[in-house]
Amino acid sequence: MYSVEFIENKLKILDQTKLPFVEEYINTDDVERISQAIEKLEVRGAPAIGITAAYALALSIKNSTIEKIKNNFYSAVNRLQITRPTAVNLFYAIDEMKKFFEENFNKKNLYLLLIEKAKQIHSNDINLCERIAENGLSIFKKKSNVLTHCNTGFLATGGNGTALNVIKKGYENNLIEHVFVDETRPLFQGSRLTAWELEKLKIPFTIITDSTSAFLMQQNKIDLVITGADRITLNGDSANKIGTYNLAVLCNYHKIPFYIAAPYTTIDFNSSDKSKIKIEERNKKEIFKIGNHKITKEIYQAYAPAFDIIPNELISGIITDAKIFSKPYNFINV
Amino acid sequence: MYSVEFIENKLKILDQTKLPFVEEYINTDDVERISQAIEKLEVRGAPAIGITAAYALALSIKNSTIEKIKNNFYSAVNRLQITRPTAVNLFYAIDEMKKFFEENFNKKNLYLLLIEKAKQIHSNDINLCERIAENGLSIFKKKSNVLTHCNTGFLATGGNGTALNVIKKGYENNLIEHVFVDETRPLFQGSRLTAWELEKLKIPFTIITDSTSAFLMQQNKIDLVITGADRITLNGDSANKIGTYNLAVLCNYHKIPFYIAAPYTTIDFNSSDKSKIKIEERNKKEIFKIGNHKITKEIYQAYAPAFDIIPNELISGIITDAKIFSKPYNFINV
Repeated sequence: MYSVEFIENKLKILDQTKLPFVEEYINTDDVERISQAIEKLEVRGAPAIGITAAYALALSIKNSTIEKIKNNFYSAVNRLQITRPTAVNLFYAIDEMKKFFEENFNKKNLYLLLIEKAKQIHSNDINLCERIAENGLSIFKKKSNVLTHCNTGFLATGGNGTALNVIKKGYENNLIEHVFVDETRPLFQGSRLTAWELEKLKIPFTIITDSTSAFLMQQNKIDLVITGADRITLNGDSANKIGTYNLAVLCNYHKIPFYIAAPYTTIDFNSSDKSKIKIEERNKKEIFKIGNHKITKEIYQAYAPAFDIIPNELISGIITDAKIFSKPYNFINV
Repeated sequence: MYSVEFIENKLKILDQTKLPFVEEYINTDDVERISQAIEKLEVRGAPAIGITAAYALALSIKNSTIEKIKNNFYSAVNRLQITRPTAVNLFYAIDEMKKFFEENFNKKNLYLLLIEKAKQIHSNDINLCERIAENGLSIFKKKSNVLTHCNTGFLATGGNGTALNVIKKGYENNLIEHVFVDETRPLFQGSRLTAWELEKLKIPFTIITDSTSAFLMQQNKIDLVITGADRITLNGDSANKIGTYNLAVLCNYHKIPFYIAAPYTTIDFNSSDKSKIKIEERNKKEIFKIGNHKITKEIYQAYAPAFDIIPNELISGIITDAKIFSKPYNFINV
């Protein structure tokens, strides 16, 4: 099961806003529709967004006349770039497709070549998810109670996930006792998506509100925390879903290991440290309205960053497909 | 404006589940209906619950024949005692009414005497809210950005509130720059009730999700945190709305003062420390369903404590109507 698939010259996107109740798919070859799917979080998770964008760029020239190929391709680049500014994987995928497009511009069947390139990005992701999980196994020193935030499973990636794939692999190796899932306000990726994935995997889990994790730690009910990352800077500072920094501080106080699991490509070699990370702000409606249910008055002011940033000193290790990195971070020397 | 009022031999309860959209009142003299109002959080906040229970006990004998007075009164005691087990003020109010009932059992007009006693408990609360606010003023060393959790204003008390009244008084004295309001999952007392009170008070505020506070602290946007408490033990450990312990740990890490404001009666002289506090668990439906909107599947498991517990070492001071207490706590010597 995949979050995105390329079938019959269309992209088939599992609409994550409908989960866990309905498995509904968006079938489209329209770049604007795909861009909206990214913006509306119908497809989400940094690696899944990258793969989606790669397919979208290929599809942008599907029906192009020769004169319009360049224009269509670069319009798609511009449109996709503004969908989610924090996810570094999005820009990696776009850059890779752009480079490939320019190198192969004069070839016949450019559309098919771009599709093959996008499929290759996708299958790379499938492979690296497995390597992350294998590399992550060593963090479990005993059968553990693990807490995770947001969703980092197959819904978030092209393959089986990052942090949640480490948990899956740990469970398969009898190293997971129980998983605690932060509901993850405002969009409930934890209670909707991670819960749904854990149900499918038959891994025992309990959902909590985001502010309950501290109380569980106080009661010694959490052995370790694993989350994903959307961007990692050269010194190991990591941006991830809002609430992750909160967890890292709690782990520090309770002396609980705090791990990040992410593809090596999440490392942003152009950013030295957290001061370079731009944090996307979401619409306050996501806080004030759930479905059609209004929680509070729209006139009130809200602050709704999509991400927060964990300074490297609070991270026990960053699990990647290459290896587990820890302080002092030297990402270049793999 | 009061959260509960006694008018024409009925209790008039502002239905807090309808806020901030509609100001609707429950007018009743029925003990069962009042108990349900406490359970359903139509009226909430430890002091407001205590006052509500006091009036309910008086009302329990309103239409009693002499033979049934005792039975009706003690049935009401039993019913009210099981509504919210953590709020110590509830038990104080019940005990006070019980003692008064027993001392005056043979007097004429016992119903009217009980009403007067309940009104006295109510007016005491109004006065002590003012003293808390006055005592709290000294915590502001400059014009401050304050963060608060849940609701501790007039909705939560008989008077103008505890922690939120300190903020109100601070604002009146030009010592508040801005208030950040945790939405307070699962029941949104922050984004619904505290926001509504701050709107009425014309104090500038911003709503955040509960896990965003850490990120604000990292950016030096919070100068101090004030919350209420539902039960304080003799060593200063304090139980409050789930998420408050989380804030206390964050304040410790970011070197931000963390204050509690509560009536002196919140101190439980029968409990030595946090190990003695019973934590109420709420129904998981509060996490899984908002209004009629289902967030996730009902079959999933959840852990939903109503409160958490802050150990005394994380508290900068406990602001009461008597004075501000700090470590080592000696509550008896006032």
